Amino acid sequence: MNITPIEIIGLIAGFCTTFSFLPQVVRTWRTKSVDDISLRMYLLLCFGILLWLYYGISMQSVALVLTNGVSLILTSSILVMKVLYRNRGRQ
Amino acid sequence: MNITPIEIIGLIAGFCTTFSFLPQVVRTWRTKSVDDISLRMYLLLCFGILLWLYYGISMQSVALVLTNGVSLILTSSILVMKVLYRNRGRQ
Repeated sequence: MNITPIEIIGLIAGFCTTFSFLPQVVRTWRTKSVDDISLRMYLLLCFGILLWLYYGISMQSVALVLTNGVSLILTSSILVMKVLYRNRGRQ
Repeated sequence: MNITPIEIIGLIAGFCTTFSFLPQVVRTWRTKSVDDISLRMYLLLCFGILLWLYYGISMQSVALVLTNGVSLILTSSILVMKVLYRNRGRQ
């Protein structure tokens, strides 16, 4: 399988956008403070990623399934923490 | 041009993930409070989206250029506000 330079850029792009949510998961887990985070953003984002996952499965695209699978785990954990810690003051 | 149901799902997915950042832009603009937002997340996300944009231009994909162009505008405005308002207390 011959990977072109532009495909490598695509792989790096996918890695960055997928794992970009990890620092937010860590920060929110540590601080338990979520006031500044938009609930609507993560509701819409999780829904959209879920659709991408369904799309990827339908198209049998390993890349789409993998990247959106990981993104869904990260973004939905932020969403859960946003709901759980919503009424806590800043710690 | 015949659009299949699965392509419609892809379009909806792209719309949701692209515009999901809009509520966060509005919230941050209104509150000017960014403590809970991860700077690293938005640095990595903006970098990844920039690569997707380059990838889309190289592949001459209108869908990738449009979705990532809008996402870049929204996520980079959150990044700029995160840097600008970082030292402000909660208002």
